[in-house]
Amino acid sequence: MTVDTTIPATMRAVVMNKPGDVTVETIEVPRVVKPTDVVLKLAAACVCGSDLWPYRGLQPVDHQFMGHEYVGTVVEKGEEVSTLELGDFVIGSFMLSDNTCEICEAGYQSRCANAGRYTGSQAEYMRVELADGSLVKVPGGEPSDPDKLADYLAASDVLGTGWYAAVAAHAGPGKTIAVVGDGAVGLCAVLAAKALGAERVIAFSRHESRAALAREFGADVIIAKRGDEGAAKVKELTNGYGAHGVCEAVGTQESMDQALASVRPGGYVGFVGVSHDQTIDGGDLFFREVHLEGGPAPVRRFLPDLIRRIQADEIEPGKVFTQRIPLDDAAQAYQAMDERREIKVLLEV
Amino acid sequence: MTVDTTIPATMRAVVMNKPGDVTVETIEVPRVVKPTDVVLKLAAACVCGSDLWPYRGLQPVDHQFMGHEYVGTVVEKGEEVSTLELGDFVIGSFMLSDNTCEICEAGYQSRCANAGRYTGSQAEYMRVELADGSLVKVPGGEPSDPDKLADYLAASDVLGTGWYAAVAAHAGPGKTIAVVGDGAVGLCAVLAAKALGAERVIAFSRHESRAALAREFGADVIIAKRGDEGAAKVKELTNGYGAHGVCEAVGTQESMDQALASVRPGGYVGFVGVSHDQTIDGGDLFFREVHLEGGPAPVRRFLPDLIRRIQADEIEPGKVFTQRIPLDDAAQAYQAMDERREIKVLLEV
Repeated sequence: MTVDTTIPATMRAVVMNKPGDVTVETIEVPRVVKPTDVVLKLAAACVCGSDLWPYRGLQPVDHQFMGHEYVGTVVEKGEEVSTLELGDFVIGSFMLSDNTCEICEAGYQSRCANAGRYTGSQAEYMRVELADGSLVKVPGGEPSDPDKLADYLAASDVLGTGWYAAVAAHAGPGKTIAVVGDGAVGLCAVLAAKALGAERVIAFSRHESRAALAREFGADVIIAKRGDEGAAKVKELTNGYGAHGVCEAVGTQESMDQALASVRPGGYVGFVGVSHDQTIDGGDLFFREVHLEGGPAPVRRFLPDLIRRIQADEIEPGKVFTQRIPLDDAAQAYQAMDERREIKVLLEV
Repeated sequence: MTVDTTIPATMRAVVMNKPGDVTVETIEVPRVVKPTDVVLKLAAACVCGSDLWPYRGLQPVDHQFMGHEYVGTVVEKGEEVSTLELGDFVIGSFMLSDNTCEICEAGYQSRCANAGRYTGSQAEYMRVELADGSLVKVPGGEPSDPDKLADYLAASDVLGTGWYAAVAAHAGPGKTIAVVGDGAVGLCAVLAAKALGAERVIAFSRHESRAALAREFGADVIIAKRGDEGAAKVKELTNGYGAHGVCEAVGTQESMDQALASVRPGGYVGFVGVSHDQTIDGGDLFFREVHLEGGPAPVRRFLPDLIRRIQADEIEPGKVFTQRIPLDDAAQAYQAMDERREIKVLLEV
């Protein structure tokens, strides 16, 4: 095992003590445990919309150390890690994968049969299992441009997740794609649908700043109505047929109902909002006759392409970060996102 | 309008009076009403599994004149019918389509934006709207071989529906496909999965005669267990992954649960059993991460290919008809299917 001796003994890390109570504590730096592990020195972190569910008391606080989006530099590696070197700047996903099982080979690394674990990424360092199968090296190393760094951080989750929604919704030339949800993932789904060649992208939003970013990301139409009224608007815009594909990026009953009501028969719904108390009526689904695909996004599938597009300045997903706050002030980042004052907050490590 | 004067004034037709009560009555022969209609002299009819729902009192008897599977000869046509001639022997589907709207063009004729109507096909004659978009001519005319006639009749619904399930399950080379349901549709899904090149087809069945036909149609493995036990068997046979695709050909909660439990992450479930009181939990679906597609089968999409395969003796779907009964004895056909004594009964017209 190669050990980089510049790793300190302790670090600062975000801890969720109970709903609404987030602090930053000094804890031990994680180190390589398994021969396929690496330890990353993180370059930036952020708060995810899914962190707000336990923060709001809507699901149990089942893990203390927070964060699952990350970019950073390899500072320690296990002896079996063969594709990464110390000093490599990498992006990983919120799901770790061996990238060799049949599920991974089919492009569903988020459901890898041998999934690994990581420590929280709202911290200065993190341990990542299955490094070879999970992490993708960014050519050229850590960017000096903070906007580029934000782009890469976005690729780790919100961009990869929005991209999956757009791929599952079969976004492409000639298609009208609607996006339910104007959070960071929904906005990235807008960006993805347009980047994948969709002819027309419809975003649902009632917040001017979010609608403005949706437009900047390529939305052709903004619909301020929700539910059946919103879906009726989509039908009006598509000769009564409905959208060819819909991205569902919220995870509530209302958002799923709106997505299903907005898509045409034979169309595609990609759902990536973490599902909370949703039920789908089988008869309704049967007679709608649509394709439904969703779940935790297999971000690893898309990372090489996303890195290439970021390096080519084709996409600027980092714009979802509307505020930057030092890691030590993470509590403020949770508050800002909880109150929807910011779309997404970047934590400077 | 061309009128064939050999059409009689009255005919025999099956009537469902109330649950469990089916009779054959003498009624007026339907005639062309709209310029896009034809009238068919039927060559054979049959009872569908979906007819058993009202027969068993499990859904309302909302239409008296029964039957939606048909093969027959054009004996009258409206003045705008341009692709069919009097005397043509044709197959249609249980859904009528213009075959020109965007939904039809995408292959979802069962959800045509301008869907037409027909009269019951458990009768000597039927009226069919949107004839050009719905009916497909069989080259060579009505077959003299009764087995071939049965093959064509099967194509009208059970084969077309099983085919859709297999296509939605992404059956193809290298794939393991499991089929839930050993009725005529499930058996045709077995046939379809194999015809589409699936490497291994797994059929669930606990009835020896149905399992035997499944084997004849190409099933490589029969699993006599149901539910989670049945799904566990599928996982055992697939290195723990689950089937690449599953056809759900029943429509109950149990059958959908079994299908979802049998498929691997990233896999495909094609569901074609008419849904009855099914609900799907959004969270369960999210974390399973599968593709779900289903509904009333767009049989019209597949008919030209199915006719070609039948003519080439590649498939013999007519074997699902395990009994032939004269139309006048239709009540016996309903009883035989209700009691699961026969897989499917052909009504000789």
